[in-house]
This record gives sequence, C-alpha cells and structure tokens, in this order.
Amino acid sequence: METNGQPTKRSKWTIASSLMAKRTFNPIRTVVDGMKLEPNPDKDLISLSIGDPTVFGNLGPSQEMKDAVVSALNSGKSNGYAPSVGYEHARAAVAKRFSTPDIPLKSKDVVFACGCSEALEMAILVLANPGQNVLIPKPGFSLYWTICQAYGIDSKHYNLLPERSWEIDLDHLESLIDENTSCIVVNNPSNPCGSVFTKDHILDICSVARRHKLPIIADEVYADMVFSESEFHSVSSLSEEIPVLTCGGLAKRFLCPGWRMGWIIMQSRTGAFDEEIRHGLFNLSTRVLGPCTLIQAALPDIFDNSSPEFYSHAMEVFESNAKLAYKTLKQIKGLNPIMPQGAMYLMCGLDPSYFADITDDQDFVEKLMCEESVFCLPAKVFEYPNYFRIVLSVPPEKVKTACQRIEEFCLRHSKQK
Amino acid sequence: METNGQPTKRSKWTIASSLMAKRTFNPIRTVVDGMKLEPNPDKDLISLSIGDPTVFGNLGPSQEMKDAVVSALNSGKSNGYAPSVGYEHARAAVAKRFSTPDIPLKSKDVVFACGCSEALEMAILVLANPGQNVLIPKPGFSLYWTICQAYGIDSKHYNLLPERSWEIDLDHLESLIDENTSCIVVNNPSNPCGSVFTKDHILDICSVARRHKLPIIADEVYADMVFSESEFHSVSSLSEEIPVLTCGGLAKRFLCPGWRMGWIIMQSRTGAFDEEIRHGLFNLSTRVLGPCTLIQAALPDIFDNSSPEFYSHAMEVFESNAKLAYKTLKQIKGLNPIMPQGAMYLMCGLDPSYFADITDDQDFVEKLMCEESVFCLPAKVFEYPNYFRIVLSVPPEKVKTACQRIEEFCLRHSKQK
Repeated sequence: METNGQPTKRSKWTIASSLMAKRTFNPIRTVVDGMKLEPNPDKDLISLSIGDPTVFGNLGPSQEMKDAVVSALNSGKSNGYAPSVGYEHARAAVAKRFSTPDIPLKSKDVVFACGCSEALEMAILVLANPGQNVLIPKPGFSLYWTICQAYGIDSKHYNLLPERSWEIDLDHLESLIDENTSCIVVNNPSNPCGSVFTKDHILDICSVARRHKLPIIADEVYADMVFSESEFHSVSSLSEEIPVLTCGGLAKRFLCPGWRMGWIIMQSRTGAFDEEIRHGLFNLSTRVLGPCTLIQAALPDIFDNSSPEFYSHAMEVFESNAKLAYKTLKQIKGLNPIMPQGAMYLMCGLDPSYFADITDDQDFVEKLMCEESVFCLPAKVFEYPNYFRIVLSVPPEKVKTACQRIEEFCLRHSKQK
Repeated sequence: METNGQPTKRSKWTIASSLMAKRTFNPIRTVVDGMKLEPNPDKDLISLSIGDPTVFGNLGPSQEMKDAVVSALNSGKSNGYAPSVGYEHARAAVAKRFSTPDIPLKSKDVVFACGCSEALEMAILVLANPGQNVLIPKPGFSLYWTICQAYGIDSKHYNLLPERSWEIDLDHLESLIDENTSCIVVNNPSNPCGSVFTKDHILDICSVARRHKLPIIADEVYADMVFSESEFHSVSSLSEEIPVLTCGGLAKRFLCPGWRMGWIIMQSRTGAFDEEIRHGLFNLSTRVLGPCTLIQAALPDIFDNSSPEFYSHAMEVFESNAKLAYKTLKQIKGLNPIMPQGAMYLMCGLDPSYFADITDDQDFVEKLMCEESVFCLPAKVFEYPNYFRIVLSVPPEKVKTACQRIEEFCLRHSKQK
C-alpha cells in the first residue's frame, strides 16, 4: 500500500480483522439484516421467527428447575472452576438419563459444552480438518454451515424430501460422500422441518454410514420432543457399530436456551472413539472451560425432579399449534404446509405462481410483515427457497391470529381474486 | 495404509481426531500429568496450585451476588437466548463500570464471552491470522499459548524481569516484533507473577506499541486486585491512540470463576476498531452465543450491590498471605521469593545448587508433595524453569503450615546440613 510514493504500512491505526472473523457468520442474519422489515403500525407484531420457546412468556423452566439452581447457588460448592469437561456428578446424570440397557453410558462418555451450539462446534472440530467435508441437511440449521465456514471445513448439503415428511434423500446423501468426507450430521427431530425420523429411516441412514465407515454427529437437541403419534429413536440406539457423537442440551426440552447447558455423548460399541476422539474432545474443552457451574451442579436435580406434566405441557402446546397452523395454511391456495411430527417448527411451501405480486419467500415474508405484522423466517436462510418456517411455541391465540392474517394476506395477493 | 496387499482404508472403525484437537492442549496438564504426585499419607494435603479462590471455602461470591442471580431466575425474563454479544443492559453495566471521564464507554464497546478464557480466545482470533504472531509474556498464563497453538497462530515469548518486579524487558519485547506481529498481550496484574505495573512502565509499553502500530490485548481479569501500596492502572487509561481490547470477567475479583462471565471491551480513540474489529467480534460471538443469561442479567446488580468490604476482604487475605509467605520463604537458603503487588500469586525462585538432591523445579515440587503433602505449581508450566508458583487465596493457617513444611523440606535437602 503506497500513497504519494510513501509507504503507509502501519502508519495508520486501521486494524483489519482476521480471515476467520470475516468468514464466521450466520446466514440467517445476512438474509434478515438485508430485509425490509417494517411492521404495520396498526397491528400488533406477531413474531413466528425465533426458535426460542421462552420468548412469549407462556413457556419456561419449571419451579423445580429454578429450585435446583438456587440450591446449587446456596450450597457454596459450585462457584469454582469445574473440570473443563464438566463436573463428574453432572456428567454422570447425563450418562444415566441417556443410558439404555443395550448401551450403558458412563460419565467419561459425556463432555459438557456451552449450549448445544458449542457441542456441535466441538463435535465437528474433533472430527474434521480444514479441507475435509461434512455432510449436512438441506434445509437445515444454519449453524452447521457457519461452523464449517469459520474453520475452513467444507460442507456439502444433502437433500431432505418434503414429500416424504422430510426424510433424507439417501441416494443423494451417498452420492456426496468422497474420500474427504469426515462425518454425517443428522438432525432429528429437525429444525426447521419439525420432522421425526422413523426407526426404519434411521436404520437406512446408518446403512449408508456403515458402508462408508463414517461416524455420525446426531444433533438431538430436540430429543423426545415428538407429537402424540410419533416416536423418537435416537441414532445411537440404532447405530450398532457406527460411532456416534450425540449433541444435546437443556435448551429446548427444558425451555431454557439462555442457560447454555449442552453436552456431547460419545458412543462407540467398537471403541472407535477411545484412541483419539475422547482425548481430542477433552483437549477442545480446555478453551472455553464448559458451561456455568451453577447449571451444571443443578443438572441431576433438574433431571430427577422435573414432572411429567412439565414435559407434556410444552409438547401439547407445540402439537396443537402445529395442527391449527397446518389446517389453516393447508386451505390457502399457493401455500403447502408440511405437517411436522415433533420439535417446534412447521415449514410451509410457497408457490409464487399463485400470487399476483409475490416473487419468492423473502418477498412474501417482507410483505407479510409490512401489511400484517406477522414475521416468519424465509427458508432461504436454510438454503431452501420458497418455503417459510413458523415457530410453534407461541401462545395458541397468536398462532390463530397469525394464520388468519396470512390467509387474508394470501387472498389479497392472489391472482384470482 | 496397506496390510497384506489389501487396502485397509476405512475398513476399520478407528476414527482419528483432527489436527486442531491434537494441538489444543494446556501445557500445565502436560507437565502435571507427567509428574509423580503422591502426597505423604501422614500429612494433610495443602494444594497451593490452583488459581481458584473458592477452592478452600474461605472465599466466594457475596450474598448480594447470589441474590442478584436468584432475582434474575425469578424474573422469568432471563431464560431465553440473549443477543450473541450479550444483553444490552448487562453490557451497558460493564461499560458504565469501566468508563472514565476521559474514555466514556458504551454498551456497543462491550462483547460478552464465556469467561475471560473465551474473551482472550476471541480477542486473539479477531486480530491474528494463522502464520501471524502474537507477543506473550514469559512467564505467563499458559492459555495464551494454548489458543495460538490451537489455531496455528505463532506466539513469541517476551521476557519479564524478576529483578524488576516482573516488569517487561522492553528491549526484548521490541526485538521480537516483525512484519507478521499482530498484537501484544499484556497481563496486568499478572498470573503467575502477582506483579502490578507502574503507570510509567505501562506508558513505556505503550510507546513500543505506538512505534510499531500494534494493538494491545490487555488481560485485566485481575483489574483492581492490588495490595495496599500499589495502584492499578488499566492499559486503556494510558494507551491514548493505541487500540486496546481489554479482557476481563467476574472470575477473580468477584470470586466465582465457575460462573464463566467474561467480556471484551473495545477501546480505540481513533476509531481503529470501528471498520472491522467490532463486526469481527460480533461474528465470532455467534459460535458459542455468550455466557449463561442468568449471570448476564444479574450483572448490573452484582456491580451495584457488592459492598466495599466484599472487595477489601479478599484482598486482605491475599496480601497478608503474600507477606507471610514472602517473609518465610525469603529466609530459606536456595529460595528467592519475589514479593507480589497484587493478584493472588507469588513466584519463588529456586537455586538447585543449594540442594543435595534437587535437580529442578519439577523435582522440587514432586519431592515436596511426596514428603510434605504441599503442592505448588512448577513454573516450567509457564515456560520459566526453576521457579514455582504458590496461590495466596488459601486460609492463612494453611499458608503458614505450608511455608513451615517447605522450610523443613529445604533444610532436610540442603547441601549444608
């Protein structure tokens, strides 16, 4: 860099950010920040965009959970550093909760992280080198891509099939595997789809992994969050000899995403993780040193004392909202909602050809916000244009109002009025 | 990899860990794990090795701090996701606390992290690319090296001078700077030295940074933790146009390292961080999504309600322990303690030539543990052989006993009995 023949290097205090800081970003923000999002001042805003069940105040952690944190606080024993992988007794509680007769887990199989986000980062980082690739779902949670991108790891998107309740296109998945593939990320139940894979489908996914000797990262932060007619099967319960890193956390199931309590469960019946991965995750945990010790210490009580009603209440809200939204949106020409079986989301397809002046999902979402003060997330942010995602954790009356407004909006913009 | 002419690639389930997982490690563990550390069963163990003020139960967070967390818990408003850089009102509280009339800070100048460890990682990551170098102190906190090593960033150690109360050897510091140097890490008050830099010395450090247009990362997690005859000056209060990322947290000053509440304060009077660094730190924060929201929400009350006695009590313990340890160790031939001016550590030099059968700091620490059940950290872990570090946060009677045992141990091993 030269100015008037004078070298200006280091003569100015303009500090450049690193390459990593430049390439670490969340595509949701890139899309949403670039949108024109001005709600109609005459209508109250209903935001169906954020995957945070606590946002409307109708759902949140139970009294038992709060008591457990207060108890940890009052014990005076949970203020110091925990081991970087987490307190032994708290990891034992996670091991106990996720053990099955077939697959007993021990505390050493559990590593804590600051939320499922850091768990996913550690799982990807321990398995993949820059230049290798990770197979991730499309549509899928944008963090997988963000993590890979930040660290110079390639990601390849395998297709989910809306017409098959968002099952994985297994032929497409398998076609993406090459000698640089390090692992497959499977998200079940799914964000953004709300899909819940059947036992047979998980077995089919495992067959692909087995053929290519690829470990699986199972993002199961929505574990057990299934509607009344579905059943949750963890990948690790069906994976047999395939090594699986299962990522989970309190965030969604226990309605406290801000508490940042996440974990990785290492499971490998053949000992495939014993040589390097266990130690590698330990190493990676020494950077951030784990989640808040008060929450760690509260974990055994949180698991033991939470009532079945606490579990079932949230799922009833999500399921009834799903049915209500599906029923209403299904009747609207130009929209094609896909009924979810779990988690807390519904994806709705959009056919712009039915509308007089809607070009795509982003345009739909912007105009809906502007006219009806309803905010959905355009599925463009999940690499899946012409769908939008709605969140099902909001109070039912708001879902009802939002769907009515969407209906009026669609009629108003329809080609055939 | 071939066996009997058959390709064995991917035919086994042995999963290798990534290069990053392999190279992320804490030298403290490497040294300590390799040591023979068996305490004398006839003497109670006194561990002076861990920089955690809560370990002995004599120090910990105040009732006001606990009340603040309970209040955040009961509000029901702090369970969801915070912005990844932290709650606005909590960042404003940090900005207010560290503002001076000269340098007013705003919430946008503060980014939260999971403890000062993650703050340091983010500060280094936003400034340095792989292949660039970061200047770090020797002896110094091992995490600086660990972070650089994990990300392929080079580190260069500048010397601290024990004979000048651990001031920086400025000539040596300057001699290390080259065209690939991205920043200087300054740790004041210091771990492991317990040193507190004078105003003049900080101005001299700033002169070096200014000459080479290098930003400073100020690790000030021990800010304000100084003994009665010293005064703390933050780097940013004296840096004038030099851009400074100040890393801090609740851990040490507020006696709660497990709570993992850390922050970075961006300060640049010339706006040098505005173009890229502010945005880069925001980007990096989207990976782990910040500390536990309960602690974030409690932060304004923690700052406002903590009594001066809570602050002064811990410092009185550290200072009286420092004086006691210094006085006792100073009388022992072969040892050369350096009196600290703050933080919670004392470094003690060791001259093996005085001893009949002590080869170095590691040997000293192993034999001391084996015979006297006193555990200090060999300064080899800080790249500084023939010193050992003792922690000053333990109950005074334990420091006394530990020093007596060290004295007996040294006499027993002396060449001139």
